[in-house]
Amino acid sequence: MTKKIDSHRRRFLVTSAAGGAAAGLAGIAPSALARGKPLPGYASWKDADSLIVHSSNTMETVRGAFGTSGVTASDRLFVRNNLTPPEGVTANPGAWQVELQGVTNPRAFTLAELMTLGLESVPMVMQCSGNGRGFFAHKVGGTQWKTGAAGCVFFSGVPVKTLVAMQGGVRQGMRYMTSTGGESLPAGVDAKRVRVERSVPWTAMDSAILAWEMNGEPLPLAHGGPLRIVIPGYYGVNNVKYVKTVAFTVDETDTRIQSSSYRMRGIGQKGAPSQPSMWEMNLKSFVTGPDGESPVKAGMVQIHGVAWAGTSSVKGVEVSLDGGKSWKAASLIGSLVGPYAWRNFVLPARLDKGTYTITSRAIGFDGQVQPELRVENERGYGHNGWRDHAVTVTVA
Amino acid sequence: MTKKIDSHRRRFLVTSAAGGAAAGLAGIAPSALARGKPLPGYASWKDADSLIVHSSNTMETVRGAFGTSGVTASDRLFVRNNLTPPEGVTANPGAWQVELQGVTNPRAFTLAELMTLGLESVPMVMQCSGNGRGFFAHKVGGTQWKTGAAGCVFFSGVPVKTLVAMQGGVRQGMRYMTSTGGESLPAGVDAKRVRVERSVPWTAMDSAILAWEMNGEPLPLAHGGPLRIVIPGYYGVNNVKYVKTVAFTVDETDTRIQSSSYRMRGIGQKGAPSQPSMWEMNLKSFVTGPDGESPVKAGMVQIHGVAWAGTSSVKGVEVSLDGGKSWKAASLIGSLVGPYAWRNFVLPARLDKGTYTITSRAIGFDGQVQPELRVENERGYGHNGWRDHAVTVTVA
Repeated sequence: MTKKIDSHRRRFLVTSAAGGAAAGLAGIAPSALARGKPLPGYASWKDADSLIVHSSNTMETVRGAFGTSGVTASDRLFVRNNLTPPEGVTANPGAWQVELQGVTNPRAFTLAELMTLGLESVPMVMQCSGNGRGFFAHKVGGTQWKTGAAGCVFFSGVPVKTLVAMQGGVRQGMRYMTSTGGESLPAGVDAKRVRVERSVPWTAMDSAILAWEMNGEPLPLAHGGPLRIVIPGYYGVNNVKYVKTVAFTVDETDTRIQSSSYRMRGIGQKGAPSQPSMWEMNLKSFVTGPDGESPVKAGMVQIHGVAWAGTSSVKGVEVSLDGGKSWKAASLIGSLVGPYAWRNFVLPARLDKGTYTITSRAIGFDGQVQPELRVENERGYGHNGWRDHAVTVTVA
Repeated sequence: MTKKIDSHRRRFLVTSAAGGAAAGLAGIAPSALARGKPLPGYASWKDADSLIVHSSNTMETVRGAFGTSGVTASDRLFVRNNLTPPEGVTANPGAWQVELQGVTNPRAFTLAELMTLGLESVPMVMQCSGNGRGFFAHKVGGTQWKTGAAGCVFFSGVPVKTLVAMQGGVRQGMRYMTSTGGESLPAGVDAKRVRVERSVPWTAMDSAILAWEMNGEPLPLAHGGPLRIVIPGYYGVNNVKYVKTVAFTVDETDTRIQSSSYRMRGIGQKGAPSQPSMWEMNLKSFVTGPDGESPVKAGMVQIHGVAWAGTSSVKGVEVSLDGGKSWKAASLIGSLVGPYAWRNFVLPARLDKGTYTITSRAIGFDGQVQPELRVENERGYGHNGWRDHAVTVTVA
């Protein structure tokens, strides 16, 4: 591990320079080795200093490590796998096959063929449904994500609608687009209980891409390579990795991950298909600097963070230094890099010595305002309440 | 080196999957170790398979390795240093100092302070003035770049105009913004002959940023970290690395890199201040896939590439399969991520067996069309002629 960290330090000069220094000084942040377990092999190329390793399938980006450039660096992007990535796909990615079903002429495509059929690219927010779960007060199982199960990355691949048009269109009566992951299932388990198979409204096909590239490089195994379906504006779980089948279906799949998991339900309730599924992301923002860890000196501070609105767009962001008693309009910086990307925002502020509760709330183009409180729910999904996302900053 | 390549292969599954496969199959490209020298220490974190190492100061992105997502991955971005990067700046980047001169109240800023004063981000093309030099027919010294001394990356930092306003504005009569690099000069040399100090029209200040971040991570030493001035739309040499001084000046600097180098001049002419300086980039595009190396099978091919227009914007791109006899309109894909970014384009084409000369020409919003021929000039600068940038593709 020492060698790896030295290599990262040499590259970027210093740990968390952007986060720490933007908060007022450029000190060395504590080593991420103290933040969790070692990185697993398939993610060993990640920047350990920027990640909290919850488990071999779940790694969270540190709040101060998002940067301010619009794009999340691949080696800082969170990882959340439902199952161990499939083995043996690295030898010949072009031979990876995906089945298109529920169209007039169903057929299989190899990845090598897909690459000849169309090309589109989209910058988009990828966020786990459970991002923010760590802020819930009831006893909720699953990874205790705070802010870092999210990132904004660029995908490229072939539009699903291109393939559907080639194959004669969606068959009549189909209401869902159902994608199945290609993970090898553990022996002896009930496939319906563990298989990653998700349904979304079939109209999501219009913006969906079968992606083989992320941030200008072949899609890494840790993020669903060689082939992943991405559905801009939808929670991470719908963006099925190692995708083996895309089927237009009459009904939602009856796999557990669809029928009872990833459902908004009251605390203590069992999951059921009648409850809202984790599809489109809600309006959200949070402050990424100061990050609540790096020391902040009295004087000017550039309070910055990220904001997005699922399948809609952000009109503005407000920042509070006093836990929500008063708000000031922040500026959106950079360009709108795409309709599904997040915006970086900044509020310059002069901070005297003292303790501040700093938070942000996004305002959507539809006039919606990011809410103060979380929606209490059994599994801790969809948390966009600005109060819990505040950082406490002591200015010395 | 074996270990490093294994790590990259594990991450991205296969070498050049995007480039090779987009051209019709996903075979393994030849190892980049055959493409040049080993990566130098300060760039050892780069993806060797995506780079041609011309020298320890010059590394070129392979034509097929640019990707199609709008952003160039940092580990694939070209490197062109005029001098060896300074030593010893990694220990405390926040202490890096830059002087602001030629304003009403000149002063020095540490990087730690700059980070408290403002924040802006910009996606932009970075391109060496000599990109394309390898296509010139006369005997021209310097790195023989073909297409790969260019990339599109996201920078963040503080706007120069913010600092200028803080310090009372530019002093009257100043016509240039002159930036000086902080490289340690070799002992016993004439500083004027080797110092990296460049002047641009002072109005370029409006979009210039003192940047400490690239693609969401602290700016690597290889790209000018801890602090670089970036001037969107201008050739790379003006984006001074390890920037130590930004001065508003009456005249252009008399360093050699300004007064006689980086000048458009006829073959055989000596460089002089009266000749056009390499400032704003011209209208340019090139095909990145097929890349002329990876095999292409008969059938559908997604011909793709990149196009940009310096400080202006691209309206469209046309592609020719017959060396410029006939042209078809390509589609721009993805979003316009910013006014100084490049656009990815694609033209789907059905190719029978045979040999094709594939090239592209960009069309600017001002109606300008990328020219057929290079402008012959002593140093091989500013090459945007579409004929030389063609790839010869044999379809089997």
